[in-house]
Amino acid sequence: MNVKTLTIVGVGLIGGSIGLAARRRGVVKRVLGVSRDLAGVARAKALGIIDDGLLDLTEPVRCSELVIFCTPVDRIASQVLAAAPACAPGTLLTDAGSTKAAIVRAVEGRLPPGVDFVGGHPLAGSEKRGLEHAHPDLFQGRLTILTQTPRTATKAVEEIAAFWTGLGAHVRVMDPEQHDRALALTSHLPHLAAAALSAILPPHLHDLVASGFRDTTRVAAGDPALWTGIFVQNRTAVLEALNQLEERLSQFRAALEKGDSAAFDALLAQAKKVRDTLGN
Amino acid sequence: MNVKTLTIVGVGLIGGSIGLAARRRGVVKRVLGVSRDLAGVARAKALGIIDDGLLDLTEPVRCSELVIFCTPVDRIASQVLAAAPACAPGTLLTDAGSTKAAIVRAVEGRLPPGVDFVGGHPLAGSEKRGLEHAHPDLFQGRLTILTQTPRTATKAVEEIAAFWTGLGAHVRVMDPEQHDRALALTSHLPHLAAAALSAILPPHLHDLVASGFRDTTRVAAGDPALWTGIFVQNRTAVLEALNQLEERLSQFRAALEKGDSAAFDALLAQAKKVRDTLGN
Repeated sequence: MNVKTLTIVGVGLIGGSIGLAARRRGVVKRVLGVSRDLAGVARAKALGIIDDGLLDLTEPVRCSELVIFCTPVDRIASQVLAAAPACAPGTLLTDAGSTKAAIVRAVEGRLPPGVDFVGGHPLAGSEKRGLEHAHPDLFQGRLTILTQTPRTATKAVEEIAAFWTGLGAHVRVMDPEQHDRALALTSHLPHLAAAALSAILPPHLHDLVASGFRDTTRVAAGDPALWTGIFVQNRTAVLEALNQLEERLSQFRAALEKGDSAAFDALLAQAKKVRDTLGN
Repeated sequence: MNVKTLTIVGVGLIGGSIGLAARRRGVVKRVLGVSRDLAGVARAKALGIIDDGLLDLTEPVRCSELVIFCTPVDRIASQVLAAAPACAPGTLLTDAGSTKAAIVRAVEGRLPPGVDFVGGHPLAGSEKRGLEHAHPDLFQGRLTILTQTPRTATKAVEEIAAFWTGLGAHVRVMDPEQHDRALALTSHLPHLAAAALSAILPPHLHDLVASGFRDTTRVAAGDPALWTGIFVQNRTAVLEALNQLEERLSQFRAALEKGDSAAFDALLAQAKKVRDTLGN
């Protein structure tokens, strides 16, 4: 793929990091940014994230070979559908949302001929928000998942994969539902647990927390609106994952209630075995 | 307090760090270490953690003004009671265990006249173990909790507090049960949640985890036997804390099942508010 112009819709932590990475690595010739506010566009330009910025997506997508939507998951599908009619044939559309099935389902089969959409999700980010935290190496060595369904053009997937590889990422192709079930366990459920642990900490214990509590709950500082969108879109898989968590907590509880140290130790040992394989 | 000789019983991450800090800061003149294995004693000496080491605690406690027990919580009380008869009047005994009520209860009223015990718990440490990870600044700026009951000598608490201040720590004095209820929420429950989240991650998802999962589950790499001892000793408070966690998870579940975005968002926002006060 020879991308002269890339448009990034939503220039925050992820969109901003894509812009920085794409410009510094020479993956594209020009980066346009679409943001809801003029101040954001100006800051993105000042930070070297974009060559130019606009408030509306119709104009920039018209002259872009690649458009990537980095907006909250509950806005992506409607923005893709709004942008598509303005796109020239051959334009590739993709996104960076944390859920995939609802977005892909809403978009597939509703695009003009010659315009392709491939769902994407870079497994990078943090509890921080905003283009001030954007970093050109955010995707270096990290995994980006792309989605493929029977209706997704293989060539489009390959071209989006080449784009992410150019930003330093590894790429894995998955079915959107498979992605959502996986992320329910690897990301959404941990977020829920972290939020619940934070929420029940009474004020008089705030200065008794140490690094363990901080680590375990760090993601709970994430933006509530963004995460509510993710949870609502991935509701079924999250509820299934939550069942699994509660079942496992019940096993710990039963061992503790019975005073069965051996059973409790075995449960912790199995958890440690998994955690030890994941690195620091 | 003028401590010429400090004996550390159990020279791992915590005991080793106490030795390094006490020697480098000149808080004591001489540090003796008691370890179950000769190789551990030799390594501790080679690393500059102790001046000398022994396998048995009777000899070193005889000539020490301060003895600190840094062994697993289920061994501390019996070791304190075994050491006490050998101690000279005026000897101070303390510990660094993560639970306090069971230990203090087992020790109080069973010491020879003139020998005092003060429960202690430095809120420092990590999922790592062993004296190779010991660090002289481990307690710098961290909190150490000391326990006081109606039977604890105030002067003993003050002297142990001065020792910890000398290692760079802040000190807070609490009732042992109050400590255990607090730690159930700030440390033991997060450990349980982290272990459950790790345990249910199937092998085919191991390479899909990102920094969020790693942070949330980091403590689950802790030593199972050590943590089983902590959970068993603090069983009542942990089970109460687990009730609170499960209740809060049920609130998230209910909001999600009803598709009540506003309620879900409010739950996440309250969690974020707490987490934001805790720093990184």
